[in-house]
Amino acid sequence: MVGAVEFYFDFSSPYGYFAVDQVQRLADDFGRPCRWVPILLGPAFKASGNQLLIEQPLKGAYSRHDWERMSRLLGVPYAFPTPFPAATFGAARVFWWLQAQDEAAAKAFARAVFAAYFARGRMIGDKAVVAAVAGEQGLDPAAALAAMDDPQWKERCKAETEAAIARGVFGSPFVVVDGEAFWGCDRLWMVRRWLETGGW
Amino acid sequence: MVGAVEFYFDFSSPYGYFAVDQVQRLADDFGRPCRWVPILLGPAFKASGNQLLIEQPLKGAYSRHDWERMSRLLGVPYAFPTPFPAATFGAARVFWWLQAQDEAAAKAFARAVFAAYFARGRMIGDKAVVAAVAGEQGLDPAAALAAMDDPQWKERCKAETEAAIARGVFGSPFVVVDGEAFWGCDRLWMVRRWLETGGW
Repeated sequence: MVGAVEFYFDFSSPYGYFAVDQVQRLADDFGRPCRWVPILLGPAFKASGNQLLIEQPLKGAYSRHDWERMSRLLGVPYAFPTPFPAATFGAARVFWWLQAQDEAAAKAFARAVFAAYFARGRMIGDKAVVAAVAGEQGLDPAAALAAMDDPQWKERCKAETEAAIARGVFGSPFVVVDGEAFWGCDRLWMVRRWLETGGW
Repeated sequence: MVGAVEFYFDFSSPYGYFAVDQVQRLADDFGRPCRWVPILLGPAFKASGNQLLIEQPLKGAYSRHDWERMSRLLGVPYAFPTPFPAATFGAARVFWWLQAQDEAAAKAFARAVFAAYFARGRMIGDKAVVAAVAGEQGLDPAAALAAMDDPQWKERCKAETEAAIARGVFGSPFVVVDGEAFWGCDRLWMVRRWLETGGW
């Protein structure tokens, strides 16, 4: 039972933001590697027929209230960012560029992007903001900007999103353990149960 | 903190079936009354733009797998019924008729309807089946049949569904405690937290 905990998310997903530390901790608690996979929810929504939560009647109001409540429950700073959602391909490309060199740096960058958007309302859809966030992590902002325009990381981002959809990922966060899929920030108790019991 | 735990569900909802005993136990554990409210998901889906899970690409396959997994985890017998979903207005009307006389009998009947459909594949969309289930609970099947055609219970069922939608209910199960809404069978841990802490 040493397979990775695979964690799929979009940088513009509030529930992805609330899940990120919890999922890494889950993997750590059970000695599993944790593979972070930023994807683009746009194509996943297209494949699944899903829509943005905030655009849905009733569910939209529920979600906005739930994000505030989740923030208080978890003690994670949060303010609904405007505009919402943000384009996240730039941040995802930088993540893949970093991940190829240093996984810890890629994860630190990802956490910083999430916090920039959801705790401080910075516009992560703007490449200059993404480069600035990278700079604050001790990375070279010019190299981050170059990575965002590099076809290699553009393709990687696209391929990871397509592979995720092919294996059934339709939302964020989405966790896969031992081939078993768990959708949602409210489902992490079940991932823990799976890891504790070895499945059922 | 003595308000009721309000439990909204549709008799054709697998997650409603998996939630029913858990929600009642939650209320019992905290000395709260538990108000069961069978609604018709059709109008709620119309108001919210939601669709049947099984008709959605990716999410449909996920849900079917998840229901099997949930059944094993909870130790609750389950087999996906065909046809699915079932019309549930008949069962809901009988529930309201019973509830006006004897809440415990109404809850026992509701549990029996859920089990008939999800554990034994009986067609609860058929009024004769609903009447037979009532008969097995020691009720008069002819009176149950009459309740299904009684405008009083038809109206009650419609009014409860409309009131639910007006307060934001868009799915099943849906729990409201102290005015706080929690959607989903995978969210009951949060209801427990709410009851334990008095809210946050």
